[in-house]
Amino acid sequence: MNVAIIGASGYTGLELIKILINHPKFDITYIANSTGEENVQELHPSLEGVIDIEVSKADAKEVKKVADLVFLALPHKTSMFFVKELLDFGVKVVDLSADYRLELEAYEKHYCPHEDKEHIKDSVYGLPEYFAEEIKKSNLVANPGCYPTATLLALLPFVDYIEEGSQIFIDAKSGVSGAGKKLSEVAHFVNLNENTHAYNPFKHRHMPEIEEKVKIVKNKEFQINFVPHLLPVTRGMLISVFATLKDEINVDEILEKSYVDNEFVRIRKSPVDLKSVAGTNFCDIYVARNKKALFVNSSIDNLLRGASSQAVVNANLMCGFEENEGIPKIAYVP
Amino acid sequence: MNVAIIGASGYTGLELIKILINHPKFDITYIANSTGEENVQELHPSLEGVIDIEVSKADAKEVKKVADLVFLALPHKTSMFFVKELLDFGVKVVDLSADYRLELEAYEKHYCPHEDKEHIKDSVYGLPEYFAEEIKKSNLVANPGCYPTATLLALLPFVDYIEEGSQIFIDAKSGVSGAGKKLSEVAHFVNLNENTHAYNPFKHRHMPEIEEKVKIVKNKEFQINFVPHLLPVTRGMLISVFATLKDEINVDEILEKSYVDNEFVRIRKSPVDLKSVAGTNFCDIYVARNKKALFVNSSIDNLLRGASSQAVVNANLMCGFEENEGIPKIAYVP
Amino acid sequence: MNVAIIGASGYTGLELIKILINHPKFDITYIANSTGEENVQELHPSLEGVIDIEVSKADAKEVKKVADLVFLALPHKTSMFFVKELLDFGVKVVDLSADYRLELEAYEKHYCPHEDKEHIKDSVYGLPEYFAEEIKKSNLVANPGCYPTATLLALLPFVDYIEEGSQIFIDAKSGVSGAGKKLSEVAHFVNLNENTHAYNPFKHRHMPEIEEKVKIVKNKEFQINFVPHLLPVTRGMLISVFATLKDEINVDEILEKSYVDNEFVRIRKSPVDLKSVAGTNFCDIYVARNKKALFVNSSIDNLLRGASSQAVVNANLMCGFEENEGIPKIAYVP
Amino acid sequence: MNVAIIGASGYTGLELIKILINHPKFDITYIANSTGEENVQELHPSLEGVIDIEVSKADAKEVKKVADLVFLALPHKTSMFFVKELLDFGVKVVDLSADYRLELEAYEKHYCPHEDKEHIKDSVYGLPEYFAEEIKKSNLVANPGCYPTATLLALLPFVDYIEEGSQIFIDAKSGVSGAGKKLSEVAHFVNLNENTHAYNPFKHRHMPEIEEKVKIVKNKEFQINFVPHLLPVTRGMLISVFATLKDEINVDEILEKSYVDNEFVRIRKSPVDLKSVAGTNFCDIYVARNKKALFVNSSIDNLLRGASSQAVVNANLMCGFEENEGIPKIAYVP
Repeated sequence: MNVAIIGASGYTGLELIKILINHPKFDITYIANSTGEENVQELHPSLEGVIDIEVSKADAKEVKKVADLVFLALPHKTSMFFVKELLDFGVKVVDLSADYRLELEAYEKHYCPHEDKEHIKDSVYGLPEYFAEEIKKSNLVANPGCYPTATLLALLPFVDYIEEGSQIFIDAKSGVSGAGKKLSEVAHFVNLNENTHAYNPFKHRHMPEIEEKVKIVKNKEFQINFVPHLLPVTRGMLISVFATLKDEINVDEILEKSYVDNEFVRIRKSPVDLKSVAGTNFCDIYVARNKKALFVNSSIDNLLRGASSQAVVNANLMCGFEENEGIPKIAYVP
Repeated sequence: MNVAIIGASGYTGLELIKILINHPKFDITYIANSTGEENVQELHPSLEGVIDIEVSKADAKEVKKVADLVFLALPHKTSMFFVKELLDFGVKVVDLSADYRLELEAYEKHYCPHEDKEHIKDSVYGLPEYFAEEIKKSNLVANPGCYPTATLLALLPFVDYIEEGSQIFIDAKSGVSGAGKKLSEVAHFVNLNENTHAYNPFKHRHMPEIEEKVKIVKNKEFQINFVPHLLPVTRGMLISVFATLKDEINVDEILEKSYVDNEFVRIRKSPVDLKSVAGTNFCDIYVARNKKALFVNSSIDNLLRGASSQAVVNANLMCGFEENEGIPKIAYVP
Repeated sequence: MNVAIIGASGYTGLELIKILINHPKFDITYIANSTGEENVQELHPSLEGVIDIEVSKADAKEVKKVADLVFLALPHKTSMFFVKELLDFGVKVVDLSADYRLELEAYEKHYCPHEDKEHIKDSVYGLPEYFAEEIKKSNLVANPGCYPTATLLALLPFVDYIEEGSQIFIDAKSGVSGAGKKLSEVAHFVNLNENTHAYNPFKHRHMPEIEEKVKIVKNKEFQINFVPHLLPVTRGMLISVFATLKDEINVDEILEKSYVDNEFVRIRKSPVDLKSVAGTNFCDIYVARNKKALFVNSSIDNLLRGASSQAVVNANLMCGFEENEGIPKIAYVP
Repeated sequence: MNVAIIGASGYTGLELIKILINHPKFDITYIANSTGEENVQELHPSLEGVIDIEVSKADAKEVKKVADLVFLALPHKTSMFFVKELLDFGVKVVDLSADYRLELEAYEKHYCPHEDKEHIKDSVYGLPEYFAEEIKKSNLVANPGCYPTATLLALLPFVDYIEEGSQIFIDAKSGVSGAGKKLSEVAHFVNLNENTHAYNPFKHRHMPEIEEKVKIVKNKEFQINFVPHLLPVTRGMLISVFATLKDEINVDEILEKSYVDNEFVRIRKSPVDLKSVAGTNFCDIYVARNKKALFVNSSIDNLLRGASSQAVVNANLMCGFEENEGIPKIAYVP
């Protein structure tokens, strides 16, 4: 099956290329960014000697001619303009931006007015462990944010056991590749090296995404108090979920049962780390309890499970392939 | 005033030497470790050309002859044997180990049987912002643990406002110098670089220390749920305190008032970081609120405010000097 | 074709497993270390959910039953005892240790007495760009050291143009994974982080390996002055070759011609870096000239091109497969 | 003595402030950058609670009123405009830019036309170990570049013993703070972390500075072949000097004698590292020889000995103070 990537310049675009090169079912026939007119080897010098393809200036009409499915690795507020046209052309879309993740009202509150109100209703949230059946039938999958992916996989199994009305706290830590390729003060080496700090505490836009999906999946409303941090590492994301349980339950058993059939979730016997998942689509989860206090601890590769490899899993499902075909499982360790 | 350091080999011993070299009131007359028989320049090659003094094999009798105050930078369970003898000799002691931090029962539960039950009762907990008056009158100060220092300074101002019976969660992150100079798997560069992970969740021995001091200072009992992490950095510690407030109070005002006279606590308008405090005795604190959810965020240099510079503040107070004499205030930034 | 790995505990053993899992021609039938009796997922927790195979206690007789080729990822001075037995059993061997890299006299001078003088004569040096034909016919390939691999690929094209009798200087920089999994002072995070330093200047055992191979390939004798450094990174190796040319030649042209048919050597137009090769078998090379002063600059992944992926290339050649079958080409960038 | 700093925004400006706060003889009376109108605590938040002084918009006339000596921490090509005016006002100047380091012809070849040809002749090169007497008498000291400082201190003792006409190679490695506070691709965390690479090989503007000073001090002409690298660390610089000796001399003895009276040069018995000098004005040097091949290895803190602390040493000398007054000697180790 022929696929296209629009938004090839950034880190998630590069990761998509890297996965698709070795994918047994997908062939990359089109790669685009906002300027075009260079070879992918100039855009990403590490691909010299690996793949030789021109980068086009993004154009939905061109995609239609050469691909059946497209990955959009575009900034928020940019994707929505492509999606409309692509769906009209009958091209399946996996959108890695936030544009179709939230319900309309929440989107417009936290981002901006939406220009494609029609399709936002039809989009499916691409968290395979919870929405696989819907994804299989969908032409438009909104790939989850990195923080929501790791948080929801940790939190959802326990939502039914958390004391109603109690506060849920998320202390999240991300490698700085999540902040993108664009130069910024926080990503300046001297500023981040030997350093770490929270940012946007209680104000990050992934907070409403988590709250909304908890409500949709579990039909429970909780105040999610989300505090992200930047780590002096490139890849990886570590989540601490803190909550108050109704009872002193067997948390290991609950976690174990929740993902018994999900090969990309690994239940761990000790606290999880970044390196065991870096380079893979795995989400590792560990849980501990102190009387009624709950700690769920998950880790993912923010660029893969938090973006590009999860997008390819979604594409696999949308195209009727095996969920795990061509999905990276071998970590960058050591 | 002449001072001694016993336990000069480790990182906190080195930091003590570095501070005392430039201290206007203290002179180092004695440095010891468990072996002796080398120059401090061999033990710490960075001190070549800076200080020239023999390292002795630790002996309380020798200390008595040459010093009026001694810093013990020894492992837990080792300090207690020196303290007894030194106090009998009339030497003031600042103990950087855990041996005199807890009440007897708690100590024996979390560490080991105590061999100096007599003095554990008389020791003062060396957190200057809360125990300055007692420290001034004491001959034996138990220097707080690094995690309790940063956590208590963040948490104590808010204890009266936290919903009774609710859970308090601490997500703590430390640079790996806190794990000491001894080789270990967690401190192996390949294991920690580009990585981070929790350790001993809900089981770290600084958890009862925090609970006990909250009770002593505020006369309130809370379950403190403490999860420490290792960061791929050398120095620095970052704390997230998460709690549920009784009411939607003005948290900035409360914090501001709590430390109005304390020059080593800086209230910050944005989330705190490690580099602004590395190399100093400062504790930086930031606070945010989401309805009744509280986030208090503090940072310290784990080797200085979390150990050696706080020890010298305590020594200043015990000797009647100004609290801030010779205490490092200039960060290692950039 | 069935293959075995002896020495599965270390980093190069892990890398061999990771490559062979996805290799289209080789099946891993046997994995061993010095103790055995655990699953590979316990030995390398990142492999949970990826490969499920027992780790045996190393035994050449067992290898014979299940494999036609074996990779030895063992310490120097240990390999030689296995090689003898394995070759007698008719098993092909790729040895990643130093035991068969040097001529007998040089080996015994720089390492220790050799216990398998018979086979040292027959071994082929596994640098495919220069010894491919011999490798194809060999049953025993000595996989080159990491430093010699990167240095020789940079230096050999220019040897004929270097002033006779002049000094050749190599300033080499390696990620610390090259120092192995064993705990050591140099690999202690606190010691290496924010640091770098040379070690064994003019005394490293890869120096005679480079000198010997220059002589064998080019029939020229040069004094190679080799100074390795440790970098605060996990993977990757960067080489500076400095030499004095006889004439002001066109160095770009010489380099370009030297590797025109070698897909795993990439000639770069700007100085090379670690990240573009990390995770791959590529050796990137750049060259510059200042009148008669020559600078050749190469980079490899020390664990892959410097060890495990080069070993699999050698295995491919020994078994008559395509040189590049199953060899990693996609870098860990970003 | 009252001093001013013009160019307070950058890293070297911050380091000047940090040193001068604790200096026993100098008082900072004026701090300026190109915009002014903020407090130094806003410019450098780590200085909150440490120093409280307004940052002015740079104006030479204001300096004249309040200071006897000024440090210029300005970009190249900017300093020269201030110097003229300041010297006319009778203010002593330590210039940290390149504007007065080179002889006119070399400056104009490598930088730009010079606007203050008059004073370039009178400036003294501020490398105290070689120019102390001239510095004492000067009103305008050109503070050396970081690479030339570390290279010249390593190289100069051996120049007389190096084979005439032979090539001298410098492999230099710098922490990225040397690239300044301005955002840049090379200093983007994701690009530099786990990475290293050369830049401007044989083309860096510190190359002619080294060649010129070798000629001035030793009256010898050598081709200096200089290749700098960026390291994934914030502070520190490591130099490898490679050269060919005329004879197999005792290099340790030569080095030892060269700096017998210089307290800020430390001769080391093993290869030098960054951390032992970070935070200090020390230059550590180690030397090794392989027959006629020479390796001299030096390290400095690029922001201190390579800029700000050397500037204060120069100021000490210009004002008749002790060379080492208020100069940092205690490293940031661990």
